[in-house]
Amino acid sequence: MPGSGSPEFRTSNSLLQRFRGELRVIPVEGLPEVREGDDVAALIAAAVAVEPGDVIVVAHKVVSKAEGRVVPLDDVEPSPQARELAAGEDPRRLEVILRESARLVRTRPPLVIAETRHGFVCASAGVDASNAAEPNTVVLLPEDPDASAARLRGRLLELTGAGVAVIVSDSFGRAWRQGTTDVAIGCAGLQPLLDLNGEHDAAGYELHATVIAVADELAGAAELVRGKLNRVPAAVIRGFGLGGEGTARELVMPPERDLFR
Amino acid sequence: MPGSGSPEFRTSNSLLQRFRGELRVIPVEGLPEVREGDDVAALIAAAVAVEPGDVIVVAHKVVSKAEGRVVPLDDVEPSPQARELAAGEDPRRLEVILRESARLVRTRPPLVIAETRHGFVCASAGVDASNAAEPNTVVLLPEDPDASAARLRGRLLELTGAGVAVIVSDSFGRAWRQGTTDVAIGCAGLQPLLDLNGEHDAAGYELHATVIAVADELAGAAELVRGKLNRVPAAVIRGFGLGGEGTARELVMPPERDLFR
Repeated sequence: MPGSGSPEFRTSNSLLQRFRGELRVIPVEGLPEVREGDDVAALIAAAVAVEPGDVIVVAHKVVSKAEGRVVPLDDVEPSPQARELAAGEDPRRLEVILRESARLVRTRPPLVIAETRHGFVCASAGVDASNAAEPNTVVLLPEDPDASAARLRGRLLELTGAGVAVIVSDSFGRAWRQGTTDVAIGCAGLQPLLDLNGEHDAAGYELHATVIAVADELAGAAELVRGKLNRVPAAVIRGFGLGGEGTARELVMPPERDLFR
Repeated sequence: MPGSGSPEFRTSNSLLQRFRGELRVIPVEGLPEVREGDDVAALIAAAVAVEPGDVIVVAHKVVSKAEGRVVPLDDVEPSPQARELAAGEDPRRLEVILRESARLVRTRPPLVIAETRHGFVCASAGVDASNAAEPNTVVLLPEDPDASAARLRGRLLELTGAGVAVIVSDSFGRAWRQGTTDVAIGCAGLQPLLDLNGEHDAAGYELHATVIAVADELAGAAELVRGKLNRVPAAVIRGFGLGGEGTARELVMPPERDLFR
């Protein structure tokens, strides 16, 4: 067991120093309905005074809309498989879900749990109808949510001078548990996983296999103030203190480690 | 589509009114090492000024220790199955895991994903060695974490006069995603699931199947300030605003709805 003078212990102490203290989760209110081509970073910067070190969590739907990832269902011709999975619901929506799926994980029509091209396992391959600006459209996940987060981060730095982290979030269901929690599907300026392996707890024991998905916990915390209604698609988390570099792809369990494929 | 005068819309507005605004997540620092019989609520009340409406998130380990849910491994005789699953690690720890398991969900020795008697699916049936006050002991989940939360809540009311909600949390891994997030395994004074079914979003569309596991998001937010090190086993979340009654058992997916049993 190392004493407090060992390098390992100093590392964990300095890690915690940055990591502790009060956290504030602030809803970004007053954003307008977002349309294709809108500058989401400018809308956020106009609505809230961001500070260096802030984590800005943005619901993927505004990002997707700004990036034009909206599909009018009138343009969609459903396949036989989509009709089969629809179970009385709109087969065109199921067709879009199938197109967004790399692999179907479970189906109970009209419910589809799919793996997206990004590797995320979620309901409807992330295809969603709620909050669409107009009926008969569905909203897809961003093509590359990590790139979306990096662009937002760069643009926020340009506009405000503040170096922030950005998380693009979505609401995912979970195996074995009821309800959704928001998780990170895109990430920039932040290590999404806080690895405490080799750190030592207060009793001096090594913590094995303690890797905390902080990006997902930040996304969930933001959801608590965002709500689903009344257009609060973003939140600022102040005081988290851990930055770094990383992407939400790191949150995807590699197939060889995945016991639940 | 109902207008803003419809009862449904008024409901969702008033729900959001309570639900929005800034959230503060405050670590409870300076707690001593907890031992069997300790009054955890009194320790928390002495360390932080709780206010009515606060959500107090307590890591299950301090609750378990206070409730005497600590097993000395010297008292444990491993079964043949435990020896088989140990894969070179301590078979006595595996034996305790098997005793705490209602059902093994996946095994990759020495890794065991199990369903506990409470219905939670998690690694090692919640049995954990880290942060144990002494070596050669393991810490179990509380016998009834909802009852533990209710007792803490009642005692905090008695001691401080403040009506608070209490969440007992643990770090769970997830299918398909790397890293752990903290979730609620016990809950009192709070509806763990926020059901927005039948609510209407800003564009007036009904939100189907939108049930948010707020108790899990609150547990995750608390984890962000608690860290694993330096004994910060509790956090106060201020400004959440939604109370109600409910238990963490409601977060367990009923078998008939579970696609991943």
